[in-house]
Amino acid sequence: MSEQKMMKASVMTTLGHFDMKEVPIPKPGAHDVLVKMKHVGICGSDVHYYQHGKIGDFVVTGPIILGHECAGEIVELGSGVGEKWGLNVGDQVCLEPGYGCGRCELCRTGKYNLCEDMIFMATPPYDGALQEYVCYPLECVFKLPKNMSTRDGALMEPLSVGMHACQVAEASIGKSAVILGAGPIGLVTLLCLKARGVSHIYVTDLVQQRLDTSLRLGATAVINAKENVMEEINKLTNGKGADMVFETAGSTITTQLTPDLVKKGGIILLVGMPPDGRCNFNMSRLIGKEAQIRTVFRYRHCYPLALNAIEAGLIKLDELRSLITHSFKFETECTEAFVTSRDDKVNVIKAMIEM
Amino acid sequence: MSEQKMMKASVMTTLGHFDMKEVPIPKPGAHDVLVKMKHVGICGSDVHYYQHGKIGDFVVTGPIILGHECAGEIVELGSGVGEKWGLNVGDQVCLEPGYGCGRCELCRTGKYNLCEDMIFMATPPYDGALQEYVCYPLECVFKLPKNMSTRDGALMEPLSVGMHACQVAEASIGKSAVILGAGPIGLVTLLCLKARGVSHIYVTDLVQQRLDTSLRLGATAVINAKENVMEEINKLTNGKGADMVFETAGSTITTQLTPDLVKKGGIILLVGMPPDGRCNFNMSRLIGKEAQIRTVFRYRHCYPLALNAIEAGLIKLDELRSLITHSFKFETECTEAFVTSRDDKVNVIKAMIEM
Amino acid sequence: MSEQKMMKASVMTTLGHFDMKEVPIPKPGAHDVLVKMKHVGICGSDVHYYQHGKIGDFVVTGPIILGHECAGEIVELGSGVGEKWGLNVGDQVCLEPGYGCGRCELCRTGKYNLCEDMIFMATPPYDGALQEYVCYPLECVFKLPKNMSTRDGALMEPLSVGMHACQVAEASIGKSAVILGAGPIGLVTLLCLKARGVSHIYVTDLVQQRLDTSLRLGATAVINAKENVMEEINKLTNGKGADMVFETAGSTITTQLTPDLVKKGGIILLVGMPPDGRCNFNMSRLIGKEAQIRTVFRYRHCYPLALNAIEAGLIKLDELRSLITHSFKFETECTEAFVTSRDDKVNVIKAMIEM
Amino acid sequence: MSEQKMMKASVMTTLGHFDMKEVPIPKPGAHDVLVKMKHVGICGSDVHYYQHGKIGDFVVTGPIILGHECAGEIVELGSGVGEKWGLNVGDQVCLEPGYGCGRCELCRTGKYNLCEDMIFMATPPYDGALQEYVCYPLECVFKLPKNMSTRDGALMEPLSVGMHACQVAEASIGKSAVILGAGPIGLVTLLCLKARGVSHIYVTDLVQQRLDTSLRLGATAVINAKENVMEEINKLTNGKGADMVFETAGSTITTQLTPDLVKKGGIILLVGMPPDGRCNFNMSRLIGKEAQIRTVFRYRHCYPLALNAIEAGLIKLDELRSLITHSFKFETECTEAFVTSRDDKVNVIKAMIEM
Repeated sequence: MSEQKMMKASVMTTLGHFDMKEVPIPKPGAHDVLVKMKHVGICGSDVHYYQHGKIGDFVVTGPIILGHECAGEIVELGSGVGEKWGLNVGDQVCLEPGYGCGRCELCRTGKYNLCEDMIFMATPPYDGALQEYVCYPLECVFKLPKNMSTRDGALMEPLSVGMHACQVAEASIGKSAVILGAGPIGLVTLLCLKARGVSHIYVTDLVQQRLDTSLRLGATAVINAKENVMEEINKLTNGKGADMVFETAGSTITTQLTPDLVKKGGIILLVGMPPDGRCNFNMSRLIGKEAQIRTVFRYRHCYPLALNAIEAGLIKLDELRSLITHSFKFETECTEAFVTSRDDKVNVIKAMIEM
Repeated sequence: MSEQKMMKASVMTTLGHFDMKEVPIPKPGAHDVLVKMKHVGICGSDVHYYQHGKIGDFVVTGPIILGHECAGEIVELGSGVGEKWGLNVGDQVCLEPGYGCGRCELCRTGKYNLCEDMIFMATPPYDGALQEYVCYPLECVFKLPKNMSTRDGALMEPLSVGMHACQVAEASIGKSAVILGAGPIGLVTLLCLKARGVSHIYVTDLVQQRLDTSLRLGATAVINAKENVMEEINKLTNGKGADMVFETAGSTITTQLTPDLVKKGGIILLVGMPPDGRCNFNMSRLIGKEAQIRTVFRYRHCYPLALNAIEAGLIKLDELRSLITHSFKFETECTEAFVTSRDDKVNVIKAMIEM
Repeated sequence: MSEQKMMKASVMTTLGHFDMKEVPIPKPGAHDVLVKMKHVGICGSDVHYYQHGKIGDFVVTGPIILGHECAGEIVELGSGVGEKWGLNVGDQVCLEPGYGCGRCELCRTGKYNLCEDMIFMATPPYDGALQEYVCYPLECVFKLPKNMSTRDGALMEPLSVGMHACQVAEASIGKSAVILGAGPIGLVTLLCLKARGVSHIYVTDLVQQRLDTSLRLGATAVINAKENVMEEINKLTNGKGADMVFETAGSTITTQLTPDLVKKGGIILLVGMPPDGRCNFNMSRLIGKEAQIRTVFRYRHCYPLALNAIEAGLIKLDELRSLITHSFKFETECTEAFVTSRDDKVNVIKAMIEM
Repeated sequence: MSEQKMMKASVMTTLGHFDMKEVPIPKPGAHDVLVKMKHVGICGSDVHYYQHGKIGDFVVTGPIILGHECAGEIVELGSGVGEKWGLNVGDQVCLEPGYGCGRCELCRTGKYNLCEDMIFMATPPYDGALQEYVCYPLECVFKLPKNMSTRDGALMEPLSVGMHACQVAEASIGKSAVILGAGPIGLVTLLCLKARGVSHIYVTDLVQQRLDTSLRLGATAVINAKENVMEEINKLTNGKGADMVFETAGSTITTQLTPDLVKKGGIILLVGMPPDGRCNFNMSRLIGKEAQIRTVFRYRHCYPLALNAIEAGLIKLDELRSLITHSFKFETECTEAFVTSRDDKVNVIKAMIEM
């Protein structure tokens, strides 16, 4: 019997407390790939579990490894990972951090992100990526194009949220959009809209720094949310409203604002959730415009398309990279990474942990 | 100079009061058709103007002729109504009671129902159909198939609302649907869903009589809204919810219920407006299911398709006809028609005025 | 070690020759279901392998068991077939006779029917259903509603071809369609179109008997293909052509006819393949109409929807059943079943083997 | 009675012969705009009428004014062109050179480009833009953004062909495309694909100069059509084929090649027409891949979206401008412009006539 090899994992053993533990390195099953983690980004949901121990119905009830925005290097292939999959030891890859049962109606029709039995990194009871090695099904492992590092690769997860939102909103060339909220998700949505040819993109936020970033990344105009957003959007769109309105701030006020900003026949896309879940919403305005509310839950099929777009320079790598504002060391700075992400929302767009 | 011919029109001169007036018979323009009205159905919106003098931003400020669910006989063609349009004097026809400017982006892309300059019958400041003759653009005039009378034809307007709702909901074969509210719009939605192959249709209402009608018209099951609708729908759908949820009751409670009844990835279709416009809505539930809210404002392109479906027996004429519960005479009973429609919501599904 | 249980299988050992062999009953894997076959329909492709030993690139190179239109009774569940799948020993079920790798882009996006590694019954090198027991993945096993027998269930496979064709053609209420060819696929397409609300369905064939069947199943009109089909369709559609044209005859002439029959902006749906693969096609006519050619390869996601439609009576079971014109006994009449299907194309619509 | 003002028009009085004539300046109707022409591009169809006097069923039977790619300055508004249309005397505008009847099913559903009664510039019997003034309906008149001249504006017509093709092909982010033919339409398709985020674009042509232009405009790779295109595309796409294949060369060989280049489930988009109309096409390959052929006839709704995309820099103006390779003077060089366009296909991409 071969000796079990061990690795380090940053385990949240109790709420808001990480312990660096020695745990066994997993062995890849037939269709799995073993990946040495190189970079793990910190997501708002990771910070939320760190602070509150739960999100909605997902409750942390024991030790958990956080982190799901990850990239690394392939170190071992399962026995069934044949040549046709194009994956080899030494490849720099990013991981799509979740997979469905593969058998239910939702999986079979391609909506695996909605599978009731979804296994998703860092969502209780499943562990995430803040460990030295992760073993994952081959279909979730995507080779990075030559112009991308694993540090870039760890950004594919938030980028995929923007990709999916734009897909569901049917964003296309020459259309107009409002993005409410210029946090990481608002900003990746901006990059994706631009790459799809959306020509007029208006971004709102309360933080001037974020609005400046939006302008730098190509927003047509920005509006400080302290102003009368509806009035400003009316001016910018000749009183018609925008073809699409993306709510990414997850606030009650911005959610309520959406039917006032959307064009007749237009689409509201809710990405963020209002804090209380419920909000007082003007359905009559929505109906009078024959507008729609669409929503997204994570993403599906976005990784390969996003990688293609970056490889071709349609989503600009330097713009994407500029979302990483802070870096931390895996072995010693996990706690600092989470505390900074939690406390400095003005300056942190994305914190990255270097493994 | 030829003498002006006159006709009778039932004019609402003040709120809740009709006067039978003599007014000139209009002359058709080049692309118009003059139609002798035979049947006019009374819509909830007609009754609302009769009672309250306004709906949302549409306010009755002078005398108005109500009624927009209408059918009759062609008595004269405009000079430009060529043979290719297939319209002839003597034809039994129904009228689609509104048309757009034809030049704006919404009209040009086929969404004429959303045109800012829509001219719609019995919506202030435009007159409706409760007059002996109506002159209307040829593209809004549809010949009835042989199996249909003008009495049936006047039902095409409410039927078109159901047609459009089902189209926007992408209702298709083998899917499931909940219909909240079994008034006229709920019932035509039921007929349209069935004709599109939707296999499992659950109807809720507070009035047992309407639920009985729903069953007679083909509902798979009905639920009295006094019961726990969510629990019942859960049982009926194995805990999955319905592919589509149609809100046709226009109540706050039913609107709020929709995200609890819809399947993951499913579609909520709002047809009715909650009385206060706003409602406290569980957006998080919607987002967690990646479900959508779609809305409809009247209809577009539905008349010819609905007529085809009736001609082929796919929407059964006897079922459609059974929605007419009351008939009234134009010359003497307009007031009674409106009062009955207003006061006897339990028994009146659709009141028809015979011209 | 438990003794291996044996069953009978009708093996085509050499071209056009069946041997009844004793082979081991397979054991279900964790997510498999063991089904005792009750009814197996004979498909045109089965007959083609029987006669020619190949279809396109698929070549029979050794003994093979034919048959893929099948239904039976569950006799054993794999260890991982939990309660939530709703499958139990004793259930009457039909099998969707193919499944993909589950990991490639096509499978993940829901287009599993196009998977390069598809495992499909009775397509070399994979065995089919003409054996007493078949072991199959749970996601391909569908419980029959109470009103259906396994004899009906074996018809779900050809019906699914029609379901998929109508789905890809976006067949919907009030539209018109031409079906070229009234063989089994043409007829199931007719049933599906009707159930989706398509109101005007014109069927052509060379065999009068099949045209009579089409009329009985609800065709609006039929045209003997010896006549000038284009002229007839022109008359029936006021010179406009049909919204959809389904080619199910698999002949060169009918394929070439499609652009002449379709409406401007309409959809041609190719289900059958012309015998030589290639045909001389009027692309300019297609382009001048901005029409489309869409194609189908088998089906996907159709079984549950078709079963729902039958359960609700939207696809009428007696009409579907009437496609079975001949029955044969598994143990003694396999050869006769294939010979009859091959030789009597005028009278055989569907031959069924009773197990 | 006011004196009729006159203008110059370049009239093709007999095949291949232009006469500069004095004709009356038209007066705008209520919803028309009078535009002083500034730039008119020469299209392949103009040259075809000049050479052959007909295209398909459209035959020149009398004097005709050619040219339909045009832009100029508003000099007069019709009485009904209200403020809300945003059009003013002095505005630099481009014209969409065709409009439908506005009343038929195709117009009403937004497919006005397919209207049977389409009035299209320079398509017999209708005159085109090679005259000093053109009077046109307001809905076809689009104001140019500040960064565009009328010389740029005259390119909106060919660009719209590419816009429409990409729309119908559902071109979107991260997808791959082959463009067969690098003439003007192939090149504008390239620009539009890029602006929609299509990441891998492979262009083929026989002329090296055009391939160089394609690379300069952002093609991922180019293939000289003398080589084995199928083999090359196979290599570039890992044997999968491209998501989309655009045929813009209008040759039989390239049309026939399309099913070999497209991916399973992919879309072929025919823009060009093969010279004989018909071609020998491998339908079985198309069906085996469940691929589709879609076609485009001119365009619809593309002008405003294209203008937006240029205004935002998503379609780069310098790249678009670079398609203009030759310029000619209206008063003296019309013949030279047509002769050069006809004879020097290697060097001429787009010839522009300056008014």
